[in-house]
Amino acid sequence: MTEFQKTSQNRIKRLPKRGHYDRDTIYKILDEALICHVGFAENEQPFIIPINFARVGDTIVLHGAKASRLLKHIETGNPVCVEATLVDGLVLARSVFHHSVNFRSVVLFGTGRLVEDDQEKMAALEAITEHLIPGRWSEARLPNRKEMNATSVVSINIDQASAKVRSGPPGDDEEDYALPIWAGVLPMQEVPLSPVKDELMTQDIAVPKYVKKYSRKQK
Amino acid sequence: MTEFQKTSQNRIKRLPKRGHYDRDTIYKILDEALICHVGFAENEQPFIIPINFARVGDTIVLHGAKASRLLKHIETGNPVCVEATLVDGLVLARSVFHHSVNFRSVVLFGTGRLVEDDQEKMAALEAITEHLIPGRWSEARLPNRKEMNATSVVSINIDQASAKVRSGPPGDDEEDYALPIWAGVLPMQEVPLSPVKDELMTQDIAVPKYVKKYSRKQK
Repeated sequence: MTEFQKTSQNRIKRLPKRGHYDRDTIYKILDEALICHVGFAENEQPFIIPINFARVGDTIVLHGAKASRLLKHIETGNPVCVEATLVDGLVLARSVFHHSVNFRSVVLFGTGRLVEDDQEKMAALEAITEHLIPGRWSEARLPNRKEMNATSVVSINIDQASAKVRSGPPGDDEEDYALPIWAGVLPMQEVPLSPVKDELMTQDIAVPKYVKKYSRKQK
Repeated sequence: MTEFQKTSQNRIKRLPKRGHYDRDTIYKILDEALICHVGFAENEQPFIIPINFARVGDTIVLHGAKASRLLKHIETGNPVCVEATLVDGLVLARSVFHHSVNFRSVVLFGTGRLVEDDQEKMAALEAITEHLIPGRWSEARLPNRKEMNATSVVSINIDQASAKVRSGPPGDDEEDYALPIWAGVLPMQEVPLSPVKDELMTQDIAVPKYVKKYSRKQK
């Protein structure tokens, strides 16, 4: 199934033409986003935590310290919301009212479980590392037993999801187009600057290609 | 009072040395963030919505269509969580375990109310516009009565808040420093690209200075 079903939870109600329910659109946004925002509730009190992640098939994997309140809450099977947003530009209309942001966002719902199998846990850590810096896993020193024991990994099944996308120029009211006001889009992008080498590096090691050529854009 | 009190809700439990509770640190992060993520819960089901915002004193103001589920939920006085995160860089340690992200995040808790006073509502819309594009409010066509009537504004009082900040180089285990692995930080920044003029602009109007010189960095 390539489309998520529309439900009362994931349906885009405001400006429904901006809503997308196909896995392709949704997963591409998730894969491009550096971090996600995880929401959970305790006695109707909402909490949001920004966190690294990776998508593995139809799941989201997260890792953290064993004692993490967030992970404990998720592994208990409580409902979770995960959101990720890419800002693509500022939309300057002639009227304040029609100002907007070009963006691609995903909101998904699911429940999680603790990943206990060692191989699956290692694969999740690889996915999280490769999500952050593709190419890094094969070069860095891999987790040892002590580190594995100190780390919790949870896997959240993506039960419901939708994306919301706005792109393109401003849309003004007909009578405003004649106003002498500059209108257009200021594109925004999250870009890497020059790598800063750790001063404690004693050997002369070249900056890896995956650092030099780093980009969040998905091929 | 310049510091928020530490409570069970806003206290940074993981790596407490990264926690900050002073308004100065917290508000600077909020003011630099382009968007925020608003969390609410309905019957223990969490929801997160990415949205434009502004900080006005000790409050967060949001706007949207009158029918917005998010705003209706907030104006009813339900507990709300607002989160904003700036990613400053990727931290490449020698070990996978010590990989990290340099970031500045804020999580705050409060309850909201509908802004009904016209002047206060207009001021909130000005703050949201100026948060997005400083300098734009005095140039764009301001909201008219019809637009004001179609728009809801809510104000969320910042009752509890904390920031979490990581900066600087990787911190590896002593024995890993000798490994022949490149280590350091890849700084990341959200930057504007070249402005794209609306093709429907009939007059020859120069790109405004606040667009040309756009930057999220706070002075």
